[in-house]
Amino acid sequence: MDRVYNFSAGPSMLPLSVLEQAQRDLVCYPGAGCSVMEMSHRSHAYEAIISRAEDALRKLMQIPEDYAVLFLQGGASLQFSMVPMNLVKRGGTADYAVTGVFAKKALAEAKRWCCANAVSDGSLSGYTTIPNLTPDMLSPDASYLHITGNNTIYGTAYRTEPETNGIPLVADWSSAILSRVIDVNKYTLIYAGAQKNMGIAGVTVVILKKSAIPDEIDSVVPSMLQYKIMAETGSMYNTPPAFAIYVAGLVFQWVLDQGGVPALEKHNAEKAAILYSALDESKLFRPVTAKEFRSNMNVTFTLPDEKLTADFLRMAEERGLINIKGHRAVGGCRASIYNAMPTEGVVKLVECMRDFEKQVL
Amino acid sequence: MDRVYNFSAGPSMLPLSVLEQAQRDLVCYPGAGCSVMEMSHRSHAYEAIISRAEDALRKLMQIPEDYAVLFLQGGASLQFSMVPMNLVKRGGTADYAVTGVFAKKALAEAKRWCCANAVSDGSLSGYTTIPNLTPDMLSPDASYLHITGNNTIYGTAYRTEPETNGIPLVADWSSAILSRVIDVNKYTLIYAGAQKNMGIAGVTVVILKKSAIPDEIDSVVPSMLQYKIMAETGSMYNTPPAFAIYVAGLVFQWVLDQGGVPALEKHNAEKAAILYSALDESKLFRPVTAKEFRSNMNVTFTLPDEKLTADFLRMAEERGLINIKGHRAVGGCRASIYNAMPTEGVVKLVECMRDFEKQVL
Repeated sequence: MDRVYNFSAGPSMLPLSVLEQAQRDLVCYPGAGCSVMEMSHRSHAYEAIISRAEDALRKLMQIPEDYAVLFLQGGASLQFSMVPMNLVKRGGTADYAVTGVFAKKALAEAKRWCCANAVSDGSLSGYTTIPNLTPDMLSPDASYLHITGNNTIYGTAYRTEPETNGIPLVADWSSAILSRVIDVNKYTLIYAGAQKNMGIAGVTVVILKKSAIPDEIDSVVPSMLQYKIMAETGSMYNTPPAFAIYVAGLVFQWVLDQGGVPALEKHNAEKAAILYSALDESKLFRPVTAKEFRSNMNVTFTLPDEKLTADFLRMAEERGLINIKGHRAVGGCRASIYNAMPTEGVVKLVECMRDFEKQVL
Repeated sequence: MDRVYNFSAGPSMLPLSVLEQAQRDLVCYPGAGCSVMEMSHRSHAYEAIISRAEDALRKLMQIPEDYAVLFLQGGASLQFSMVPMNLVKRGGTADYAVTGVFAKKALAEAKRWCCANAVSDGSLSGYTTIPNLTPDMLSPDASYLHITGNNTIYGTAYRTEPETNGIPLVADWSSAILSRVIDVNKYTLIYAGAQKNMGIAGVTVVILKKSAIPDEIDSVVPSMLQYKIMAETGSMYNTPPAFAIYVAGLVFQWVLDQGGVPALEKHNAEKAAILYSALDESKLFRPVTAKEFRSNMNVTFTLPDEKLTADFLRMAEERGLINIKGHRAVGGCRASIYNAMPTEGVVKLVECMRDFEKQVL
């Protein structure tokens, strides 16, 4: 069977060369006499794998020395809790910009721990915009402002970081990390699940200013949820998700081979432009999000009714263009075009849209 | 390069046929047009994979319908916190049998949440024994008794479940699950990291009596740490560690193909007997644990001094017998002989021990 173009929002497409290398070495990793899946995480062979992954990510994102890089479990969803548990005292204050489903979930988890405020509420615009956050909108005593850099479900993204007037900035960059240049220095903490632009589900990257790691933490917080312990043990307080970290390392090397993040950012902008232009020109398909807030990763659009939507999705699937159905919370269509989606996939999707439009109109 | 015999305590050897099947299907899973690593966890293809894994595990362990089976992240270490957070009220009472390093860690995490008592302290025997727990040793108001079924580091194991007189039994069976018949009905909750007998690091299996899942839970507990949410969403509250669950499913099928858990239990007893007999007969090597508490999974032994230990480990490694060095907390040697270790590996290890002994004595 041929490989399809997979527009899934995550887990999502991986570079073919990464898959092929993982396949080649799966039974017996060169020089190790066993699979990466079988390696003791304390072995020299595996230590080299995790160090190489961290080094590559540091290079790709120009992560300064005073930031820790952690490989954790639990996805962005566990970060929704770890961030407040580590960065704000119990009952303290934190601000959240609610620009989508995951931002809302992050806020809800923070509320278990502290006074978490929604400093903007995107539900009023149906989450099709990004707020213009200004320092006067923030709580003066906020321990941080949390933003969701790219909204996977609605297909919006921040163009620039908000000005916080010294309040530490924390961001969930799950669905756009490594797709565009992010200036790590502007953040106290960045987290991202790997299953979109960095590899497979099961590992979460946390990039964290070391000076923000608290020395003391509320005694109720599990060791597994303490950044301090994870940083001190090099993400090996317990057995890490070793194979997922290995795949992330392969993806990091692939990004380096593509010319790094700036090259991919350019490529991603070109891919997204092809799709958004087609949507803007179409008489049948309608883009969902406001032009100035469009994500280059998740492109959301609708057709006039559910029958047309279903018919279009069927036609796309017959052409090997899969997972274009919108998130169950929103409906419509969504094409996720992460780093590993080749231009050819986007071109084929646009062809399919035009052919469908001809049939229908 | 030839594959070695890997005696690592975890991550550890996988059945070769599992590795080969994962390799064959890595780039393109049959009928899916993409890798399992790329599949949306909400896709039909992936739903079939996770259901099949659960069904196989239920069959292998004869898990009754009134138990939930969860596939979670965070390893046994996160269960150290999830168990008390879900099964005992904040400040309530829970009992722990401290039979090794991981039991001690489980106790320490529980103490963050409740009054957790050590009802036995194996440190007095250097953790070489298993206590004979009787109901009078337990706290009358304990919400549960927590045991560590098999102690990976010291190489001891419970032969039978302690009598608790109605106090719910919770067990960490990470290093012996699927290696021997465990009567699930005797437990309220069983958890196990996958990286020893079930697959790769990054997924933890929790088998939990549904009636023990609390309806209400302290509001500080993160959603990701609530069994109720994980059970209601079929382990898909967020993106699960999809590939690790897939590999676990392949291992479950392999166990079925071997004749199920009873067949492997017999095989494991034979493998362990070969090694323990050699240790008991040796004039150089000494087994660490008391005979009646020996684990069939982790066989610990010592040599008279560190130089001899290092020389032996080198000789073993030259013969492709790797990771026999004892845990850094204990020293000495440890051969972990999980389900996937073939008899041939154990025989070669015994040959190596005899050859070394001849050289030295």
